[in-house]
Amino acid sequence: MADTEQRDRGVTASVWRALVGPPLRWRDVTTQRITPVEGLPALSLDALTSVAYGPEAIIVVLAAAGATALHLVLPITIAIVLLLAILVFSYRQVIDAYPNGGGAYAVSRANLGHGASLVAAAALVVDYTLTVAVSIAAGVAALTSAFPVLSPDTVVMCLVILAVVTVLNLRGLGDAARAFLLPTMVFIIGLLIIIAIGLIHPLALHAPQPGVSLVPRVPLEAVSVLLILKAFSAGCSALTGVEAIANGVPQFKEPRVKRAKRTEALLGSILGVMLLGLAVLADRWHVGPRSGQTVLSQIMAMAIGRNWAYYVMSLTITLVLALAANTSFGGLPVLASLLAKDHYLPHLFALRDDRQVFAPGIWTLAVLAGVLLIAVRGNVLTLIPLFAIGVFTGFTLSQSGLVVHWWRTRPPRWEFRAALNGLGAAATGVATVVFILTKFTEGAWVVVIAVPGFIFLFTRIHRYYLRVGVELGLGEIPGKPEVKPTVVIVPVVAVSRLARYAIGHALSISPHVVAVMVVQEDADGSAERAQHVQQQWAQWDPGVPLKVLHTEYASVAEPIVTFIDEFREHHDKEVVVLIPVALPDRLWEQVLHNHIDFILTNALRTRPDVISARITMPLDGDDHHPDGDRPGTG
Amino acid sequence: MADTEQRDRGVTASVWRALVGPPLRWRDVTTQRITPVEGLPALSLDALTSVAYGPEAIIVVLAAAGATALHLVLPITIAIVLLLAILVFSYRQVIDAYPNGGGAYAVSRANLGHGASLVAAAALVVDYTLTVAVSIAAGVAALTSAFPVLSPDTVVMCLVILAVVTVLNLRGLGDAARAFLLPTMVFIIGLLIIIAIGLIHPLALHAPQPGVSLVPRVPLEAVSVLLILKAFSAGCSALTGVEAIANGVPQFKEPRVKRAKRTEALLGSILGVMLLGLAVLADRWHVGPRSGQTVLSQIMAMAIGRNWAYYVMSLTITLVLALAANTSFGGLPVLASLLAKDHYLPHLFALRDDRQVFAPGIWTLAVLAGVLLIAVRGNVLTLIPLFAIGVFTGFTLSQSGLVVHWWRTRPPRWEFRAALNGLGAAATGVATVVFILTKFTEGAWVVVIAVPGFIFLFTRIHRYYLRVGVELGLGEIPGKPEVKPTVVIVPVVAVSRLARYAIGHALSISPHVVAVMVVQEDADGSAERAQHVQQQWAQWDPGVPLKVLHTEYASVAEPIVTFIDEFREHHDKEVVVLIPVALPDRLWEQVLHNHIDFILTNALRTRPDVISARITMPLDGDDHHPDGDRPGTG
Repeated sequence: MADTEQRDRGVTASVWRALVGPPLRWRDVTTQRITPVEGLPALSLDALTSVAYGPEAIIVVLAAAGATALHLVLPITIAIVLLLAILVFSYRQVIDAYPNGGGAYAVSRANLGHGASLVAAAALVVDYTLTVAVSIAAGVAALTSAFPVLSPDTVVMCLVILAVVTVLNLRGLGDAARAFLLPTMVFIIGLLIIIAIGLIHPLALHAPQPGVSLVPRVPLEAVSVLLILKAFSAGCSALTGVEAIANGVPQFKEPRVKRAKRTEALLGSILGVMLLGLAVLADRWHVGPRSGQTVLSQIMAMAIGRNWAYYVMSLTITLVLALAANTSFGGLPVLASLLAKDHYLPHLFALRDDRQVFAPGIWTLAVLAGVLLIAVRGNVLTLIPLFAIGVFTGFTLSQSGLVVHWWRTRPPRWEFRAALNGLGAAATGVATVVFILTKFTEGAWVVVIAVPGFIFLFTRIHRYYLRVGVELGLGEIPGKPEVKPTVVIVPVVAVSRLARYAIGHALSISPHVVAVMVVQEDADGSAERAQHVQQQWAQWDPGVPLKVLHTEYASVAEPIVTFIDEFREHHDKEVVVLIPVALPDRLWEQVLHNHIDFILTNALRTRPDVISARITMPLDGDDHHPDGDRPGTG
Repeated sequence: MADTEQRDRGVTASVWRALVGPPLRWRDVTTQRITPVEGLPALSLDALTSVAYGPEAIIVVLAAAGATALHLVLPITIAIVLLLAILVFSYRQVIDAYPNGGGAYAVSRANLGHGASLVAAAALVVDYTLTVAVSIAAGVAALTSAFPVLSPDTVVMCLVILAVVTVLNLRGLGDAARAFLLPTMVFIIGLLIIIAIGLIHPLALHAPQPGVSLVPRVPLEAVSVLLILKAFSAGCSALTGVEAIANGVPQFKEPRVKRAKRTEALLGSILGVMLLGLAVLADRWHVGPRSGQTVLSQIMAMAIGRNWAYYVMSLTITLVLALAANTSFGGLPVLASLLAKDHYLPHLFALRDDRQVFAPGIWTLAVLAGVLLIAVRGNVLTLIPLFAIGVFTGFTLSQSGLVVHWWRTRPPRWEFRAALNGLGAAATGVATVVFILTKFTEGAWVVVIAVPGFIFLFTRIHRYYLRVGVELGLGEIPGKPEVKPTVVIVPVVAVSRLARYAIGHALSISPHVVAVMVVQEDADGSAERAQHVQQQWAQWDPGVPLKVLHTEYASVAEPIVTFIDEFREHHDKEVVVLIPVALPDRLWEQVLHNHIDFILTNALRTRPDVISARITMPLDGDDHHPDGDRPGTG
């Protein structure tokens, strides 16, 4: 019978199973350790792929002030790369200090207290969501730059990529991250070659390409400080993700600290070279913002032309950006599980599902990112002002935490280390304030509201769990259980094999059983039916009294609940309500049964000290009945 | 605590309560008996209001063949009124024969057997749904004829009226039907006056009104028989509803047969006069179909002009058509409850809800009519070809049933009575065939598919209930219940007051209790936690063993179900699984609990002979604990 039912339910269930795969054991998913080269695709894609939107963000801000301002791209990029250098050195120290993985939440909880750690957690939640949305939107932008015919379907493509990434994560990626190596290498090497071609042979390919905007060079005029700060803060979106390696130290092969630090340095070098190279080319070719084509796409087209290599690179960029979104799916569910274990999020978030992944966190991230993508219609530039604030808040908190850490532990040369992290904290802290001030009206207010909102949520939840912990007496040894005599109440509607089945089970629990039947007075011949059932009951004589409950209302649950309440007022007994359920063997047949069991169970849910129980009798004819309750024996 | 929760849940629940009202007792809803004059609004609105779409349906068909064909309106209407006369005489005999209410389903079940009764039932379901859709669409058409500015919102207005009628019926109308008297009288008298004005003073108002189309008189040419049949069958939609009085005989005051027959005659006379009068005026004024204005509205505007009386009549027509839709809501749920009692529909349809109405039938009708209205975008004329087939199938079956009835009972003058009903059966039978043939491609195929579809559904359901009846041994006296010793299995996650609470209740049921805890191996420190719980358990010593279930998978329910299955293989014991639930006092707090009770209950649902039970411990701090299980005592 269970088989038949599963066959019926199987239509949706098996499609879902095919998507996410069969249940996994814990040992099936223990990941193998990674090397520095593998560390790039596994932990640094978010940072590396930000070259697809960081330079563009600068250029868009500057272009708003006129073509002359575009000349500032290079100096601003140099400032950003300097900040990158500080961050890389700082995070190499984080790796030293927290070889077990030092996310902003963990570092600030250890060193700065719960308040700061909640700020970090809220900022990280915002950051992970934005990373997913920005990466996917930028990936689709790369695609529509190469194939403009696709641009009307931007939002749909964003959501499809999001769905694919979500399902892959619900499967659990396991060792699949290793497969990211090839596209990552194509992306890094390809982009470095393109930059090199652009730098070495500028004349050969200098002629304007179709579809590329050349901004005429105009003498540089006075540009406001605010504009420069705005462009700088927009460009800092290119620095998101440099913290990921420090979070993931435990995933490296031994000596893992050394390997992780080497990966961090490698990431810093590659990212710095790419940013500087792209800035030089953008400056030399006067690349401006262009509707329907990204800055990166324009530079690529200028350097190598719109040939097969251009299209391969465009597709690769889309792919690695989707994979970069994927790394956030590695981050938020784990963070949510840590928060849930610390009682700041529903405990559900700490439960692994069949595939050993934290499914609620994955779903939450997918829904949040999906809503964002729909809200901004898949436009990266609308998201940029929201971005980086969360990331840089996290940077600031973990650097500050490190300063406290060095001051507390005082290892050799701790003053130098503390100074380095202090510099990082100061630089990123100032940057965060600049972001909030310069981009407040352009969308940063969303983050300024969201972060305290999440903190409020976390503290509300935490307070609740604390209270429940006290009420449940967790950590104490409770008193001995108390025992009372039991009475079983069985609702019946007719003298039948189902009644016999239920009464038998009830008598097994306790010799004190009462069957109850509800009769609606005057209505639809209910009284005559009741009399008939009472006669049959007397004839049957199962050794259990039948109590008829009269009601003038239509509800069946209500009189039974009232009866139980009155019974408990007069008897100090354990009350078990045993509800018989006839279970048909096909799903559609269940609609043919009145689900009084659900109604009654629900009505009893809020009654303490009443056990609401259900006994299922199958209706198929297979032999599932050890007590021989078959047609012919009754 | 229950109060707090109800307060939380109250937002939606109390809005709904305000809409449908508090629960009613059966005696609150016993309706008072009605007189012939009251019988018109209560039982005849469907028939009377069909003048709003019947004549129009004829004119639309004829106009398609050219303006000359419009001259046939009057002869076709005369034919329809003759059919009406036959039907009225036939149904007066039905009232004689079935003074307890003789719906087509009941009459054909008694005289023609189950097959015919199912055809009647299926036809009636189709008919009721179409009556609701046609009446509401015609009501909105009357409104948009008077106020053309409303016409873009036709579908929305249809759905709003449907929603209002549905909610009123979920409240249960009770004596409210009496309030229908005024609009019904305004409608009947007003329309008769308008017709009289049109007939008496044709010259005074003969000048064309703005917005009224006058078709120039052209000599009548040869018109095909098919066209005449089509127009006739379209016009027969005006005869729907004449059976309602015969169905509702029990609602009349004594002598109810006499009063019901008088009402039927009254209905026939008024309807006949109206149809003929409108046909004469349409013919005289050459009224043709006109987009945005109904034929009835055109005739009214011609007769009395577009003054206040015209607008009052238009609004009255909308109102009485909505009330006509309402009479179907009186019919289908009762029919569905009869079918459910005969095991042809889910038994749910035979259950009265809080307000003593058959809510599932009301919801079903509302959904079906809503889908129809959306599908045809609120256009009456699209629905007309589907209409009347179901009604006339019912007519034919009940007339035929009556012939059999007279032949069986042979009262005085039975030959005459049988001949009269035979004539009715023949006329309506021929009409039904004509409808199907002439309107098959225009939508009648929907009915031709739907009726057998419903019959298939009814028989499938009936076969299922028969099988279940046999399996449950309904009607037999079952054997004595069998009793076994009981073991109680309690899933726990920690040593806590909740565990103590559950173990106490378990020990009350049986001295044989096993606590089980699931440990996921290797994952997330689960093993250490388990060891900790085991130590605490030993320290607590509740007199119950703790069995640790190891699993490599993430599912918590699976190992418990496996344990139970294995246990039952080795022990012939009654197994009760008692799941402890901590119930928070606010609804939002419930998301903070892992609902393992639902997952486990669901997993156990298909296990026969296992009692799945739930014990709720409230988490508020009020004193709901007779066993003194409070903080400080544990």
